[in-house]
Parts: sequence; C-alpha cells; structure tokens
Amino acid sequence: MISKIEPVSEKLTEALQNKIDFKTKPLGALGLLETVALQIGKIQNTTSPKITKPSIVVFTADHGIVNSKPISPYPQEVTQQMVLNFLNGGAAINVFCKQNHIHLNIVDAGVNADFEKNNNLINAKIAYGTKDFSAEKAMTNEQCKLALKKGKEIVNSLFRKGCNTIGFGEMGIGNTSSAALLMSYFTQINIKNCVGKGTGLNAKGLQQKTNILKEVFEKHKTTINSPIEALATFGGFEIAMIAGAILEAATLKMTILVDGFIVTSSLLAANAIDKNVLDYCVFCHTSGEQGHKKMLDFLNAKPLLNLGLRLGEGTGAAVAFPMVSSAINFLNEMATFKSANVSEA
Amino acid sequence: MISKIEPVSEKLTEALQNKIDFKTKPLGALGLLETVALQIGKIQNTTSPKITKPSIVVFTADHGIVNSKPISPYPQEVTQQMVLNFLNGGAAINVFCKQNHIHLNIVDAGVNADFEKNNNLINAKIAYGTKDFSAEKAMTNEQCKLALKKGKEIVNSLFRKGCNTIGFGEMGIGNTSSAALLMSYFTQINIKNCVGKGTGLNAKGLQQKTNILKEVFEKHKTTINSPIEALATFGGFEIAMIAGAILEAATLKMTILVDGFIVTSSLLAANAIDKNVLDYCVFCHTSGEQGHKKMLDFLNAKPLLNLGLRLGEGTGAAVAFPMVSSAINFLNEMATFKSANVSEA
Repeated sequence: MISKIEPVSEKLTEALQNKIDFKTKPLGALGLLETVALQIGKIQNTTSPKITKPSIVVFTADHGIVNSKPISPYPQEVTQQMVLNFLNGGAAINVFCKQNHIHLNIVDAGVNADFEKNNNLINAKIAYGTKDFSAEKAMTNEQCKLALKKGKEIVNSLFRKGCNTIGFGEMGIGNTSSAALLMSYFTQINIKNCVGKGTGLNAKGLQQKTNILKEVFEKHKTTINSPIEALATFGGFEIAMIAGAILEAATLKMTILVDGFIVTSSLLAANAIDKNVLDYCVFCHTSGEQGHKKMLDFLNAKPLLNLGLRLGEGTGAAVAFPMVSSAINFLNEMATFKSANVSEA
Repeated sequence: MISKIEPVSEKLTEALQNKIDFKTKPLGALGLLETVALQIGKIQNTTSPKITKPSIVVFTADHGIVNSKPISPYPQEVTQQMVLNFLNGGAAINVFCKQNHIHLNIVDAGVNADFEKNNNLINAKIAYGTKDFSAEKAMTNEQCKLALKKGKEIVNSLFRKGCNTIGFGEMGIGNTSSAALLMSYFTQINIKNCVGKGTGLNAKGLQQKTNILKEVFEKHKTTINSPIEALATFGGFEIAMIAGAILEAATLKMTILVDGFIVTSSLLAANAIDKNVLDYCVFCHTSGEQGHKKMLDFLNAKPLLNLGLRLGEGTGAAVAFPMVSSAINFLNEMATFKSANVSEA
C-alpha cells in the first residue's frame, strides 16, 4: 500500500553548493538558511527550486482515553469547537496561514461530532473518536490502514493541484498522550521522559498523566509488532493520517514542513516504515512540549525556530514558513561576487 | 543633544495580558510571540498595535585599521562594492526586505569612496573612513557627535513619513573589530572573549586579530571617559550613527528590530547613554559571530531566531520580521474562547 520513497538525488549537490557559495556574502554566512536551500534544491533536483501552492493540512480527531482518565485539562468538546473555529478563521493557524499566504485545509479524521457540510472541511472520518487505549487498542489495524490511505489521498490530491511544499497540523484533545506513547515506542526512551504538560497540566496533573501512560505502555508494549500496530494501539486517527500524508508527500518529492510534538510522533512512525522520508523534511521548530526536543535529537534534526510554541495546529510550520521562503529566495535572487563586481576574500 | 527616552507605559499591561490569555489557545502556548505582542502593545500603548511602514536602514562606512593591520580577509574596496550591490538590489538584505515588504534605505556614513548621486542612497558621510585606531582615535568627539546627530535625523525623517517599526543594518569591512572593542569596553568582558572570526578568518587569522585588538584596547582604555568617547575611539561612523538612530527611535517610541553583533555594539553604547532604550528593542536573532551571545546575555535579551546568520546588513532583523508580524497578527485577529464558543480549561 505504501509507496517506496526514493532518497533525494545528490546529482546537483556540488552545483547547488557552488551557487550558494558564490553569492555576495561570506562563506556559510546565511547559516541554516543555506542548509535549507541546499536541501530543497536536492529535493526538487534543481539549482533554482520554487515553492508552489504552499499548504498546511490540519487533521482533527478525538481520543477515547479523554473520557475515562484525567490526562487533559480541556473537555473533549473542545476538539469539535476548534474545528468550527478553524472553519470560521479565528484560530492561530488561520491567522498565520493568512499572513504567510499558505493554503489551509481542515480534515475531520475522526472527531466525536457531526459537522454540517462545509466546502472547507474534508470529511475523512474513520470513527467518532478512538477507543480508550487504557482498556483496548485505540483502533483496529484496518482502521489504521484506512487512516494512512486517507492521509495519502489528501496529499495526492493537493499535489495534483500544484502544491510542492506541505506542512501538517493537528487538533485533538488528548493527543499529546498518544504522541508520548508513540515516542516511547519508536525511540525507546522511557515513557516518563516522553510525557509533558500538553495544553497546560500542573505538576500534579503531569504526575497523574505520567502514571496513567506508564500503565498503558506496559499493558500494550509486548503486543506490538510493527509501526502500523503501534499507531493502531496508541492512536489517534489524526496521527495515523498524518503518517500516511507524510509518506505520500515524500514519495511525491514534496518538501515537508515538520511541525511540533504530535506531528513528529507521526514522523517517527513514518520513519520506522521508510527512513528515506527524512530527506524531505524541513524541521520548522522545537516545541515547548518537553518531549519534542528529544524526538528531534533522535532524528538528528536542527529546526529553524525555538520560540516556545506549544499550540499545535501546524502553527510552528506556518510561522517558520517565511524562513523557508528566505532560503529559496536568496538562492534564486542574490547577486554573485562576479555579477556584482565584488572582490572575494 | 540626545533626547530623554521615556520608559514604556505599564498602563495597559494587564489589559494586554488578558487579551492574549483569552485567545483560543492554551495559556502561554504562543511562547515568545506572546512576549513580543505584549512588548509592542506597551510600546504603542494600545491593545491593538499596528506595524506601519516597517523599515531597515543600512549604514555603511570604512575603517582605517583595515589598511594597516590584517584583521579581515576582505579588502576595503568591498564596502563600496557592496553599497553598489545594495543599490542594484543584489545583496541578501535586498532579497529579504523585498520578500517581507520592508522599506530599505542605504546610508553612506563614511565610505572611502565617492558615489554618483542616487535617490536610494542617503549621503551622511562624515569622512572617507575612520582613522586607524591602532595609531590614534578612530574619529574626533565632534565627528562622533555629528554621526549620532545624523543617525537621529535619518530616523526622525522616516518617522515623519509614517514608520513606527525600524531595524538597522551595517556594512563596513573591519567593523567586527570596532564592535569587539566596544563590547569589551561596555560589558567589561576581556577583549579576547569578544573577538570573533568576522567574515571568516581561520584560526591563525583570529589569533592575529585578537592580539592586535588586545593592544588597541590597552592603548586607549584609560583615555575613555564616556560612551561617546568610546564610540569615537573605536569607531566606526556606521556604528556611531546607528547608536544615534537607536536613541532617536526609542525617543519616538518606535519598535526597534535589533540585528546582530555590530548593531548590538551600537546598542551597548546607546544603553550606556540611556537604559530606557531597551524597552523598545525586539531582539531578532543570535549571530553566529561568537561574541554576540555574550552581548545578548549582558542585555538579558532572548532573541527570536538562532539560525547561525553572520552576514550583517540587517539580515537577521529582516528575516525575523515576519515573526514580529505574527505576534501582532495573533493579538489582533485571533478569536477569543467566548467569541468562538470554545470551552476553557
């Protein structure tokens, strides 16, 4: 079902590095922007890369655990309320996408509510929220495969409309719990070092959440034999769908703007399925959620931003997007020492 | 000559914090963007701040030391060549200002060359480069005061045209040496810990530069009795002019976008003249030039970016500008829990 991802071509690496180095600036003086320019040049296999129809897709879903255990300070209803907020343009991701001219798409991957038909909401609902993973697997393997497939189809459709640069976001009360469990499974870091405050638990709440997730992890860990089973066990629908979306974006040689803790948990699953996916990932920010830095270290990632954002929705990707544009723009638009008649060192 | 800077008003601090906290996001979840939104609200003394005619002014000048001592791998001619590159739109700062819709202004503060008349070049030349500070003071106190005054006038003129948000950049072969000397003077950090690779010295070159600047510092340090004398002794014209520009911007209650190592050395001087200047400073990035992090620590500054940029020209401010816009935009445009009917924690 999942396409094989080709590694990026190294054919133009030297030509790209030369193009970067002959610009009117000291060698290496644009830091991480040079790294991103080189990477996107390799992804697109050209020395003049372009960003077309940049898009962010926010996948939303609910989590069964929320109604049985105190792992979030917010009630489950907030997921559906935030979907309406996205559709009405009032959320942070709306503001940042509007500012930076990013196309925004909202997906119902499995919210525990029905929505009126809306052209701006993609219906990819797998079920009305996952099962409670403290009692059973969050979803069946079949549901998980369906979620991966739907994520793939959504990306494919955007690609066919001309998008070559894509970020993913999420909303789902309880989803830092799923992400922490997946993180522990894929990185083998002890679950207690993966759990964080999420939307804002206090110290006591964090301890409670840690104890609950430790039990959940112990309950399931010996029954998981593949990345897909890990996604199915710990959920959620939005996380599995993003994993499918990431794999498809890499297969199509799109540039992937990686957001924060939840999206990176999807990437950990995608990476376990096909390591070549990382070639296509621009890491946008380090989340304020404590486990994210460790995920990034596990992936050897050096993100563009570290602003203490911990909001989800793809906001880290949206806020970092102008820097990705800056990387492309300096490569395409700056003069060279020769064209500007500037003496070299 | 230098106006008294008022501290920002705290009158609306609570109202601003409430406005930030009632947005549809977990408390504090927008990290540094919230800090910037609060700061600019206080600067403008409104809960609905706006950015008008954002501008960057690049001050350019030459340094006498360059022709007597091996402190830079580039020849002095590069300063004038880069001024032409700025005027022709080929430099990094042109690309980033164009991308982010920032008005760009170029100033000849003291380049060792004459330029043809050009409407895009502000002539504020104090002299054809500073004197060699390994032999004598870089400039007279009168020249320094003139530079401060011209910096002030340039900012005042932009303010009168409607600009309320301004960043400064610089170009001048040799100016990391001036900045390192000023840093050591104002922070009392040993000069050897202030000197860095600049445009790209190797280890041997860095050692040479350090030895030279250590001697220069020892030669002059007992003769300096004021911030203006420090600027006059160590130069350069662009650095002094930026100090004047910064002081005027703060006096006019403009938001100041602080760039890298050289500009922050100007800010150290401005701060020594009037500490209230810091209320108006948004620190945009941490430069790859090694001394910058220490300057920022001295000023208790937490910059938006850390991309390893070390190019000058105001590029750090230009690249960070979209994040400043994001801070303003979320404050003005996001829905509240109440307006969006979202349940609170």
